[in-house]
Amino acid sequence: MIKHYGAEGKIVVVVDILRATSCMVTAFAHGVKSIIPVASLEECEQYRNKGCIAAAERDGKIAKGFDIGNSPYSFMDTSMKGKTVALTTTNGTFAIQRSTAAEEVVIGSFLNRTILGNYLISQPNDVLVLCAGWKGKMNLEDTIFAGALVEDLKNHFYYENDSAFCAQTLYNSSKKDLFKFITSNSSHYKRLKSLNLDKDIKFCLQNDVYPFIPVMKEGALVSMTMESVKVDE
Amino acid sequence: MIKHYGAEGKIVVVVDILRATSCMVTAFAHGVKSIIPVASLEECEQYRNKGCIAAAERDGKIAKGFDIGNSPYSFMDTSMKGKTVALTTTNGTFAIQRSTAAEEVVIGSFLNRTILGNYLISQPNDVLVLCAGWKGKMNLEDTIFAGALVEDLKNHFYYENDSAFCAQTLYNSSKKDLFKFITSNSSHYKRLKSLNLDKDIKFCLQNDVYPFIPVMKEGALVSMTMESVKVDE
Repeated sequence: MIKHYGAEGKIVVVVDILRATSCMVTAFAHGVKSIIPVASLEECEQYRNKGCIAAAERDGKIAKGFDIGNSPYSFMDTSMKGKTVALTTTNGTFAIQRSTAAEEVVIGSFLNRTILGNYLISQPNDVLVLCAGWKGKMNLEDTIFAGALVEDLKNHFYYENDSAFCAQTLYNSSKKDLFKFITSNSSHYKRLKSLNLDKDIKFCLQNDVYPFIPVMKEGALVSMTMESVKVDE
Repeated sequence: MIKHYGAEGKIVVVVDILRATSCMVTAFAHGVKSIIPVASLEECEQYRNKGCIAAAERDGKIAKGFDIGNSPYSFMDTSMKGKTVALTTTNGTFAIQRSTAAEEVVIGSFLNRTILGNYLISQPNDVLVLCAGWKGKMNLEDTIFAGALVEDLKNHFYYENDSAFCAQTLYNSSKKDLFKFITSNSSHYKRLKSLNLDKDIKFCLQNDVYPFIPVMKEGALVSMTMESVKVDE
């Protein structure tokens, strides 16, 4: 459930830039067939026993007992092609589970920014951008992406809440050098700093690397077909 | 209870710029003895029957059956001197009630901005700025004031959450013309527009009009004594 901001009838865009939703887009671009977002490490382990690839992150690191966490580089391996991935992360998978009331749940990141924006413009539904944040709190990088999306959609939607305008203002204050703005100011970056994730972060802040939109279908993310995302020029 | 951001041991600054906390500061500047924040109109009515001045706002307007709402101009009357006011508003009084776990609850507004900042700097406690927002959602004007406070405290505190940095960025984007920024972009302003409250809003956006800090003591707001707020120059 998304308190105060009902998901009913809306397309919910789940955003966890560092790094769950960036990973999901990367995975589909490398041929992954589907991604099952799971809440617990135990559940993730069970999917591994059924032959899925199991990816698990806790507190920015690969969870103990797993080989893959949520570095986008882990999902670029050609051995991923056609596979199903079970993924659990600190914030991103929880955000997906809160969105069950939505008309549709899609995955947003800088990596698929423009194609996602075009898709949202082509649909009749209202849009709710759900930033995963960090353990229930807002964070900088997800809010900035939400602002980028508001900027892209501004001629096609009006916004209902001040949060959309605030995110847009933040994006416009930071867009000249997103990496510098985020690494200078983000509390999440400070948490991740010791983990040497600058390469991951730089990757996740690139616009339009992969024209893929992950979408929830019957409990798993799949890649939206290109016909669905085509919009009139 | 303040979810995710514990109030324990902290000074909580409650902020409801349009207009509850601006009114509270104005009221003390005009000699009001104490303000009892109450949740319901019924409770407010009961205090009136006990001889208090009853002020009640709902959805931006004076609540039915009351003479005073939350226009700061209503609290400038000399007849207020020495009186106790029972006040209920849509968002501000609820925010106060959520802060009971705090070490101390104080009231913030542009009207008492600098003296409040100086007081916070003089105290050993961490500070949590609680924006009342609008019916559970964030709003622009409270967030901008939180950012003004972050700006004033930046050499004395470090911030724990990205929300403080985001608020500061918003304040710095808007400070050249707060009135224009807020009236062009705030959803709350759009709600209030038909009520012709521009005069109230202009008043509430002025810095340092009244050197008073309302503080909660045994269920009521009183004005902090000047000795408590004195800081070394």
